[in-house]
Amino acid sequence: MGDGSRLITGVNGLAEASPSELSFYANSRYRKRLEETRAGAVLVDAEPSVDRRDGINWVRVRNAYLAFAKIAKLFSPKPALSPGIRPGASIDPRAEVDPEAVVMSGATVQRGAKVGARTCLFPGVFLGEDAAVGVDCIVYPNVTIRERCLVGSRVILHSSCVIGSDGFGFAFDPEVPEHFKIPQMGIVRVEDDVEIGACTCVDRATVGETVIGRGTKIDNLVQVAHNVKIGSMTLICGQAGISGSAEIGSGVVLAGQVGVVGHIRIGDLAKVGAQSGVAHDLEAGATVSGSPAFEHREWLKSSAAYPELATLLKEVRQLRKEVERLKSQLR
Amino acid sequence: MGDGSRLITGVNGLAEASPSELSFYANSRYRKRLEETRAGAVLVDAEPSVDRRDGINWVRVRNAYLAFAKIAKLFSPKPALSPGIRPGASIDPRAEVDPEAVVMSGATVQRGAKVGARTCLFPGVFLGEDAAVGVDCIVYPNVTIRERCLVGSRVILHSSCVIGSDGFGFAFDPEVPEHFKIPQMGIVRVEDDVEIGACTCVDRATVGETVIGRGTKIDNLVQVAHNVKIGSMTLICGQAGISGSAEIGSGVVLAGQVGVVGHIRIGDLAKVGAQSGVAHDLEAGATVSGSPAFEHREWLKSSAAYPELATLLKEVRQLRKEVERLKSQLR
Amino acid sequence: MGDGSRLITGVNGLAEASPSELSFYANSRYRKRLEETRAGAVLVDAEPSVDRRDGINWVRVRNAYLAFAKIAKLFSPKPALSPGIRPGASIDPRAEVDPEAVVMSGATVQRGAKVGARTCLFPGVFLGEDAAVGVDCIVYPNVTIRERCLVGSRVILHSSCVIGSDGFGFAFDPEVPEHFKIPQMGIVRVEDDVEIGACTCVDRATVGETVIGRGTKIDNLVQVAHNVKIGSMTLICGQAGISGSAEIGSGVVLAGQVGVVGHIRIGDLAKVGAQSGVAHDLEAGATVSGSPAFEHREWLKSSAAYPELATLLKEVRQLRKEVERLKSQLR
Repeated sequence: MGDGSRLITGVNGLAEASPSELSFYANSRYRKRLEETRAGAVLVDAEPSVDRRDGINWVRVRNAYLAFAKIAKLFSPKPALSPGIRPGASIDPRAEVDPEAVVMSGATVQRGAKVGARTCLFPGVFLGEDAAVGVDCIVYPNVTIRERCLVGSRVILHSSCVIGSDGFGFAFDPEVPEHFKIPQMGIVRVEDDVEIGACTCVDRATVGETVIGRGTKIDNLVQVAHNVKIGSMTLICGQAGISGSAEIGSGVVLAGQVGVVGHIRIGDLAKVGAQSGVAHDLEAGATVSGSPAFEHREWLKSSAAYPELATLLKEVRQLRKEVERLKSQLR
Repeated sequence: MGDGSRLITGVNGLAEASPSELSFYANSRYRKRLEETRAGAVLVDAEPSVDRRDGINWVRVRNAYLAFAKIAKLFSPKPALSPGIRPGASIDPRAEVDPEAVVMSGATVQRGAKVGARTCLFPGVFLGEDAAVGVDCIVYPNVTIRERCLVGSRVILHSSCVIGSDGFGFAFDPEVPEHFKIPQMGIVRVEDDVEIGACTCVDRATVGETVIGRGTKIDNLVQVAHNVKIGSMTLICGQAGISGSAEIGSGVVLAGQVGVVGHIRIGDLAKVGAQSGVAHDLEAGATVSGSPAFEHREWLKSSAAYPELATLLKEVRQLRKEVERLKSQLR
Repeated sequence: MGDGSRLITGVNGLAEASPSELSFYANSRYRKRLEETRAGAVLVDAEPSVDRRDGINWVRVRNAYLAFAKIAKLFSPKPALSPGIRPGASIDPRAEVDPEAVVMSGATVQRGAKVGARTCLFPGVFLGEDAAVGVDCIVYPNVTIRERCLVGSRVILHSSCVIGSDGFGFAFDPEVPEHFKIPQMGIVRVEDDVEIGACTCVDRATVGETVIGRGTKIDNLVQVAHNVKIGSMTLICGQAGISGSAEIGSGVVLAGQVGVVGHIRIGDLAKVGAQSGVAHDLEAGATVSGSPAFEHREWLKSSAAYPELATLLKEVRQLRKEVERLKSQLR
């Protein structure tokens, strides 16, 4: 709706967009920004109840955020790097680096490791013995991928994330005494289309595999312990932590700073609210909050009542006295 | 007060200081240490109610901790490094490195990046294309500063922190299905006199800027999501996390492990207690705690009552029975 | 019990083990896996109440998990690396690297630093001036050990952990105004047999030492602030955070995402439940949970009652009305 001849040369936020840029409106929190935007065109899910000012064009789409993402991608092409191994990279002669891959200075590829076509290893990346990274991956600076771990294709690993560190496993030996280290003999398998955030740690399995399923996206500073299995298309937000051998289904959302205890199962499509602690299995589709977590709507009620707890305690003590008085009057 | 001729050759804690060292007393928790210290002189805010032993000198100042810091700085001069680019550093010929800067072996400065005078890049530092670091900065080992991000002057970036990783933004496309990656086209701007802790992650904006304001200090392992704006002189303690597009004012204090949800505003000088979760806007000067957070003094009362909750529940059930009995007696 | 002639060629989990592999059973959660395992032999603490199928051998031991760990270690020998400094490592001529040590390409050892026999520094490791690492240590890629910090023997430091970053200490100077940086002049001392997880940060002391005691094991993404003292054989799980000057005893267990405030003492053998916040001293042997933390068994009761809090509030309001009615009836 509006002026179809408007030339759009880029994309931007509602507040920042100029008359030659496209923006989007998908969150009613930003209604004021919509009212004031100078954007040449705004993608909207539905016609917003906002007076359209002159010169602004609305573009009705099914999913404004998704449409914006797709258009933004067109306007932000990934720079094409000339393929090859740069001086200062350390490549073992027994490694296999695809001729179309890019390995920057200060990256290390050890014996038996494989790097797929068009994958880029930035400076400071470490790819351990017999580890493998598929095609079209971006491995940002200072990422560690330890020995034998397997990373699929179109995977993005952000700076300083660690794939395949030892799981935290010790058996207490009272005779020494010491915490005897359990050898962490397994690996991490990162499936295709996964993205893993900066400083996120995914521990290798004690035996077998720690698995990050296809299309799952993990934010920064997340802890994924040994033998965890995460399904596909799950979202794990910043600073969440998943303890050993927990199984997280597909399409799950763990919000920020969530904790999941070990050896439990979170069903597909479950949603866990920020800072919650999940201590028991969750059924598919469950929505929980709190620490320990329970049904989200019930948690909202308990949370709303919590600030009144001290008053409640006083009131009950007062009621107790009055009930005693009534009882004695009736004796 | 005491012996003005005492020669002080260094600074130390109350427990460790020798008779030739200066210490300070600013926390009454350490009164016992004050009583037992062997320090030659102790900076104090006010005359402490402690018997001064022979040979100890008290120095009354307005702010003992601040005075100690300033004197300590005199006793711990930053070692002067000879300027220049060390062998083993990887500098693109199109980068601009000030002749007075230090770039150590294993550091990378990409095309178009700028490094200011007297700034030191330690080994493993990555400075991406067109990124810039001002003058007199210290960038410790293995820090990543991604493309186009801007770091001011007198900034300290601790090891393995990540400036400008992609924001965690996806739009679900049910037709594939997949989480479609929103291009993260913006940058991070770190203003002057900021300090950012080890393994802290500051994501670049989707569009526009993620901003860390002048003189703000951020501790280790903190998550700052895309498009967050932090004002000046704010303190953010370890493992706190700030979700996307949140605005944090100036002079704010977020204690350790705090979480802040996205798209809200925390007013200037607000204080948030450890492990709290802030889910709504906070007014300037607010002091809150809890998850979800509410007024700190109220939270203290609720917290104090919480251990009695199970007893309270029983008591109310008992009261219910007794009230029913009374009602039936009065019928 | 079973076939003593069975040849075992490796170890594995119950679900993964083949008839020529040894497994273990130590957690009744995995009873079903025990029933279905194809393992050639299974270490058990006691005879499980499970029908032993043909061809499976049970091996009764005092501690199945510990026995498994020790046998697994025999089956997973640490690969022997040829000693020496690899091309591309940056070693200051005034550093002391034992001839039996391994220093990989891209590792940095600065002036006055010491590396002990059979210790391996992976690529991207930074060992600052006058820092020291003892014998038989493994320092994984991209670890930072800052100037003067001391690491004992048989220590394992996982990728991107940071030893000796500056403590988070500032004194507010209202006259500028600014947060004046307190020089962090102390060090970190990591004692023998310690393991420190990926992306874990241990800050150097303001003055004196931050200490990680002998045999203590720290998981990933943990924050250890300046001047913290941790005793021996303590376990600190992922994403826990310990504030400045706290003292943690020996044999303590801090579960995941725990927070400990500054300047307090946690006694030996204390246990702190996941996500708890410890705000006061804990006696030796205490077991606590919650934020703020209190006695674990009491916390279990309060937690169990919490989902009923909103109903409780309503019920008390209802009781108040009924008691008022009764009172008026008896007037």
